[in-house]
Amino acid sequence: MRISELTAQTGVPVPTIKYYLREKLLPEGERTAPTQAAYGDRHVQRLRVIRALIDSGVSIAETHKVLAALDDPPASAHDLIGTAHAAVTPPVDGDIDTSRAEELAAGLGWRPGLCDEKVLAGVARALQGIERGGFEIPPAVLSAYLDAMRDIARAEVAGVPTDSPEAALRYVVLGSVLNEPLLLALRRVAEQVASAERFGAASGG
Amino acid sequence: MRISELTAQTGVPVPTIKYYLREKLLPEGERTAPTQAAYGDRHVQRLRVIRALIDSGVSIAETHKVLAALDDPPASAHDLIGTAHAAVTPPVDGDIDTSRAEELAAGLGWRPGLCDEKVLAGVARALQGIERGGFEIPPAVLSAYLDAMRDIARAEVAGVPTDSPEAALRYVVLGSVLNEPLLLALRRVAEQVASAERFGAASGG
Repeated sequence: MRISELTAQTGVPVPTIKYYLREKLLPEGERTAPTQAAYGDRHVQRLRVIRALIDSGVSIAETHKVLAALDDPPASAHDLIGTAHAAVTPPVDGDIDTSRAEELAAGLGWRPGLCDEKVLAGVARALQGIERGGFEIPPAVLSAYLDAMRDIARAEVAGVPTDSPEAALRYVVLGSVLNEPLLLALRRVAEQVASAERFGAASGG
Repeated sequence: MRISELTAQTGVPVPTIKYYLREKLLPEGERTAPTQAAYGDRHVQRLRVIRALIDSGVSIAETHKVLAALDDPPASAHDLIGTAHAAVTPPVDGDIDTSRAEELAAGLGWRPGLCDEKVLAGVARALQGIERGGFEIPPAVLSAYLDAMRDIARAEVAGVPTDSPEAALRYVVLGSVLNEPLLLALRRVAEQVASAERFGAASGG
């Protein structure tokens, strides 16, 4: 198909496709004339993955890493998930004390060496942000967070497809990143429902 | 205290404090000389809230709304929570079909009129992002999301302090925004633990 059809199938505008081609995120099409190239289903799939990652705030550099892992997947499914997480987890600037994060993560069944370091540093950074904001999470809420995230993760990992490394990686990368806004949005709905249960419904409702 | 002490107590640099004063996010101190003002504990508390909101990506305009609600809190705790959520939920550009979001939210006990519209639109936008990314959430995972968010929200709302509207609003605003990165970071740790459970530990561990 031509670049215009690629746009029609994916909704990604032609100038953006050209940008992804220049950045080598998207492989070149097959040259059919000096100024024309033909694209295939592989380009459609790849474009969707690129778009999903970039729309979710993943940088071009990290998108390259995820695509590299898609092209040459690691041997074990657990390593594959580690690669996916490392790609979609922002790096931590400078040193960060992870002792409190380790303590909390232990409540999830974490043990040293099990996770990508950036993932644990992400917990430490989040705890730092909460502390800096002068907020204290009640212990019962923290405990609910651990239970809820354990249940979610088990359901998610049970759903990892094992038919191909590409399918597994795509599931983990997209599921990790794309589902985040949904989880947070559902939390807000649930909070309003719970507040109506505790305090009575809104005056407008 | 002087502005330099305000910086020492909050970690917010003097030029940033001056910017918040110009933007009228922070009330003026009491003039003690033509070029000097005295600040109190109220300024320390207010600065921490402002910093927490802005660091969490809340805009200056929305921060103004939250602070206005802190200064003049609505009568019911449920309305208060709605105000807080509305302030920290980004607006949705253009029309968005919320029918699928309503269906999903009903699984949380939502009913029409119960929530701020932006909150439901947030669910719709998240679903749209997932669809555009070409991802399908397995039904068992979606169901785990609903159960987990219901449990989290109940624990959070049970912890809302009722001693003062300021305390309640501060808890909801800060808890909603500041805890988001923690939830997402804990989810990644839990996913790595669950993947080790299912697929065996990482080769490096």
